[in-house]
Amino acid sequence: MNPARRYTLTLSCPDRVGIVAAVSGFFAQHGGWIVEASYHADADTGRFFMRQEILADSLPFDGAGLSSLFAGLAREFEMEWQISDSAQLKRVVILVSKQDHCLNDLLHRWRNGELLVDIICVISNHDDLRSFVEWHGIPFIHVDMQGNDAVAKAAAFEKIAALYEKSRGDILVLARFMQILPPDFCRRHAGRVINIHHSFLPSFAGAKPYHQAYTRGVKLIGATCHYVTEELDDGPIIEQDTVRIDHGDSVEDMVRYGRDIEKTVLARGLRYHVEDRVLVCGNKTIVFK
Amino acid sequence: MNPARRYTLTLSCPDRVGIVAAVSGFFAQHGGWIVEASYHADADTGRFFMRQEILADSLPFDGAGLSSLFAGLAREFEMEWQISDSAQLKRVVILVSKQDHCLNDLLHRWRNGELLVDIICVISNHDDLRSFVEWHGIPFIHVDMQGNDAVAKAAAFEKIAALYEKSRGDILVLARFMQILPPDFCRRHAGRVINIHHSFLPSFAGAKPYHQAYTRGVKLIGATCHYVTEELDDGPIIEQDTVRIDHGDSVEDMVRYGRDIEKTVLARGLRYHVEDRVLVCGNKTIVFK
Amino acid sequence: MNPARRYTLTLSCPDRVGIVAAVSGFFAQHGGWIVEASYHADADTGRFFMRQEILADSLPFDGAGLSSLFAGLAREFEMEWQISDSAQLKRVVILVSKQDHCLNDLLHRWRNGELLVDIICVISNHDDLRSFVEWHGIPFIHVDMQGNDAVAKAAAFEKIAALYEKSRGDILVLARFMQILPPDFCRRHAGRVINIHHSFLPSFAGAKPYHQAYTRGVKLIGATCHYVTEELDDGPIIEQDTVRIDHGDSVEDMVRYGRDIEKTVLARGLRYHVEDRVLVCGNKTIVFK
Amino acid sequence: MNPARRYTLTLSCPDRVGIVAAVSGFFAQHGGWIVEASYHADADTGRFFMRQEILADSLPFDGAGLSSLFAGLAREFEMEWQISDSAQLKRVVILVSKQDHCLNDLLHRWRNGELLVDIICVISNHDDLRSFVEWHGIPFIHVDMQGNDAVAKAAAFEKIAALYEKSRGDILVLARFMQILPPDFCRRHAGRVINIHHSFLPSFAGAKPYHQAYTRGVKLIGATCHYVTEELDDGPIIEQDTVRIDHGDSVEDMVRYGRDIEKTVLARGLRYHVEDRVLVCGNKTIVFK
Repeated sequence: MNPARRYTLTLSCPDRVGIVAAVSGFFAQHGGWIVEASYHADADTGRFFMRQEILADSLPFDGAGLSSLFAGLAREFEMEWQISDSAQLKRVVILVSKQDHCLNDLLHRWRNGELLVDIICVISNHDDLRSFVEWHGIPFIHVDMQGNDAVAKAAAFEKIAALYEKSRGDILVLARFMQILPPDFCRRHAGRVINIHHSFLPSFAGAKPYHQAYTRGVKLIGATCHYVTEELDDGPIIEQDTVRIDHGDSVEDMVRYGRDIEKTVLARGLRYHVEDRVLVCGNKTIVFK
Repeated sequence: MNPARRYTLTLSCPDRVGIVAAVSGFFAQHGGWIVEASYHADADTGRFFMRQEILADSLPFDGAGLSSLFAGLAREFEMEWQISDSAQLKRVVILVSKQDHCLNDLLHRWRNGELLVDIICVISNHDDLRSFVEWHGIPFIHVDMQGNDAVAKAAAFEKIAALYEKSRGDILVLARFMQILPPDFCRRHAGRVINIHHSFLPSFAGAKPYHQAYTRGVKLIGATCHYVTEELDDGPIIEQDTVRIDHGDSVEDMVRYGRDIEKTVLARGLRYHVEDRVLVCGNKTIVFK
Repeated sequence: MNPARRYTLTLSCPDRVGIVAAVSGFFAQHGGWIVEASYHADADTGRFFMRQEILADSLPFDGAGLSSLFAGLAREFEMEWQISDSAQLKRVVILVSKQDHCLNDLLHRWRNGELLVDIICVISNHDDLRSFVEWHGIPFIHVDMQGNDAVAKAAAFEKIAALYEKSRGDILVLARFMQILPPDFCRRHAGRVINIHHSFLPSFAGAKPYHQAYTRGVKLIGATCHYVTEELDDGPIIEQDTVRIDHGDSVEDMVRYGRDIEKTVLARGLRYHVEDRVLVCGNKTIVFK
Repeated sequence: MNPARRYTLTLSCPDRVGIVAAVSGFFAQHGGWIVEASYHADADTGRFFMRQEILADSLPFDGAGLSSLFAGLAREFEMEWQISDSAQLKRVVILVSKQDHCLNDLLHRWRNGELLVDIICVISNHDDLRSFVEWHGIPFIHVDMQGNDAVAKAAAFEKIAALYEKSRGDILVLARFMQILPPDFCRRHAGRVINIHHSFLPSFAGAKPYHQAYTRGVKLIGATCHYVTEELDDGPIIEQDTVRIDHGDSVEDMVRYGRDIEKTVLARGLRYHVEDRVLVCGNKTIVFK
């Protein structure tokens, strides 16, 4: 629940002999206690990916000191890298419409300390969930789209973008937000917007996936948490799951079963993201669980 | 393993009040002991579907007698119906290429008595699996496609069709048969050919589904057992399942994981079919488990 | 979400030919439209179990009329039976301590209309969850056990019993209530108290099941929803599920994974109960899903 | 299927800063290309566990050279360690009775190259499976227990022990062998005998677990692969899985469902063992997948 303070280093670089030795040698030399270490060599790109968690108190310097020392090693191996500090909670903004099962699940995980983040605000194109959000002491912001009026919608998205940027949010979560983000929004915040789609992608992208699943007669339905890109429902997949249905299940039954996997898959995906467990490689993700 | 002899009645008809009462009343009147009963009302078509298993010895007549008596009731309710007799094993023909995991699994279930069918023969476009099949005392027939030569292939499919028809087979099983059946073959034997496709359809239809899954970066892979129709990998789905993978899994790993679900899904699908548990409704199935 | 009004008939009786015919004939005779029908013959006891859902509007009489007409048939077949009316919501009382993941989940399902019940009140031996419960407009009652003082505890249980009885509750839900109910309470309300135990019973009954699971080194953990009986964690099981863990997971990780299956298993078990899908047979349940 | 030759180093030692740095530094210094690396720090014992796979061709010495060089480092860190060479297939002896689903599964995985081991022989207390085993070109040895006669049984176990020892087997697999090994056999070969038990241990240890599960009314059944110790069904668990059943399933149905998870769980457990992925820590296992 409240583990010791940690630095998390994530990096990628061209694969070669000696990367792990160099990085673990760097930490050993300074007495750094590594509590988690994960690696992946991507055969297609020839790149090497790494994630290390180090106890902050085991090092003789602070995060800035760590970064400036590590920079030399990183240059030598041509690393793209970042270090995050568990004492700096990730800043989360949540977008919702009217359905609240994912929101309810995320806020519960947040208030019982399972999801260690700052929730800056919840933004919605409807006012329905205000009371529930405000009960948590979290600001609720209503951006009116006036029944999907094009001008109102564009203005609403500008407001959302401004709010996200002003909040210095680390991640924008579409928690069953029933609107499609404008392309430039997606481009500008690549890797910083995650969505839960209520199908097992790539099956049933787009609108009404449970209806599509019902029509096709599949025997399991699914949910997919992915980074948002310009191409609808086509971004890098972080997490998925499926649940069994049968011929007796109506679309309404699927919606009900689906809620349980949507919220679980989104919660897992968000957790992986805020714990710096997800590294993007082309249109795929490496998830160091 | 060796249950008492049973008649299995399956039917569909326009939905209305009194169908169950009429059918169960019919059996009760003759002392028929119903051991399994399943119903489904399809909201889209307004049709009612039913499956009943009755102990043969509880009835005062044989299967022919049952059919002739039931015909009157069936007419009244405009039923499409059939009665099968567990003493008449379903006749199965299996098509394979070189991969044998599904074949091995089916033959094992057959020889330990779990899959109660007659396996008429195994047909293959390669000779590799002859010894294994013949060890079981099952005829193995090699239809040479001479490296996918068009003429040889057409001739091979004619031979397969002739063998299937001559065998009076109830079901033709494509147990990882790596060839596409000609359209007229599919039409002629609609509902009597089942395939195992190595993806969670409708995702990744067609060739090399594990490569497609690898490229898309999905987090689970699947397998689908379906009736074969003219449209490739688009027939009514009988059974599906999925298994979790991660970024560390290569295509070869997926192939290995996939084999385990392919064989299980095919075995379940075939079992449902030969036990008359699958009723087709448009492009969907009702599976009375 | 808001299906048409239905009567649900559940019954058990000695197995014989003609039960289904008699019951379905009874409804057909009065024009009753059966929307769900399930049967089970228990081989060990020779009893037959049945559940039928009938559209209320299809019958020419009300629930009382139905009951008085059905009573004759029931006598003939020596049935134990009951009829419930979907217009009469089941009355639920929830007991909690401090952990709120099951409570949060149940209240969400209730407020979005998935769990169609009346929640009479939430009772707790701690005051922590008052604000959350009251936000829902549901009465919250704190019964103080004064640090598990024996006299205070006995008084608290008497108060709980009185509240439950006065509320005419149909089901008392122990939603991670960390206290053991007195034996006479269990006896008096047999079949009307359900619990969620945080292990896959019969493994790890009693206290600290995740610690027990950690010590034994199991590779999956589970949760069990069951009726409460005098014997601790030994009552008829309604629903269970498991989730995979590995050697890297601490007890705290198990607790976190466990919450997700606890709440799902309890929600399913409670749903089955309030929809009259659970019939008890000895120390086992028949669950007509 | 046929990956490049690899050395696999597994070790455990007291946990401290610098172990990974020392080991990865050792390999980097000699140009060793690490293709898989896994770590675990056990909080209860304060020990650190590691597994590394290194491409053999990337090192300038052979396995003996590697071992003699690594010995110095190992001493410094007080490591218990071993290095295995993928070119040296593990030697497997399989014990069966009459049920062949696990045997059939293992032999199929072996003959299609998925299970890379030498199967020295199959030993059975019945002669039934001789033809199937010999079709594979694997020796089949019948050790007669003369209907469980105590003297015959003791002699049979002595013969089994002698065969296993003479074969220099790395692992003895009880593939649904329905006999209990003598305690001294278990002691002498600790960590070198694995069993598949047909329940989700610790539930339903001992005889007739499916009957026990049926009687208790559980909603899922399971299978457990574990190392054999003197205490029946109590050794370190390597792998487990569960499958859903319901009230309609007889013991025979459970047996049928169970076969599918038994064979899968045993195959996974054996695979982990022969790939040196399983490290024992007290009565628990660390499985580096």
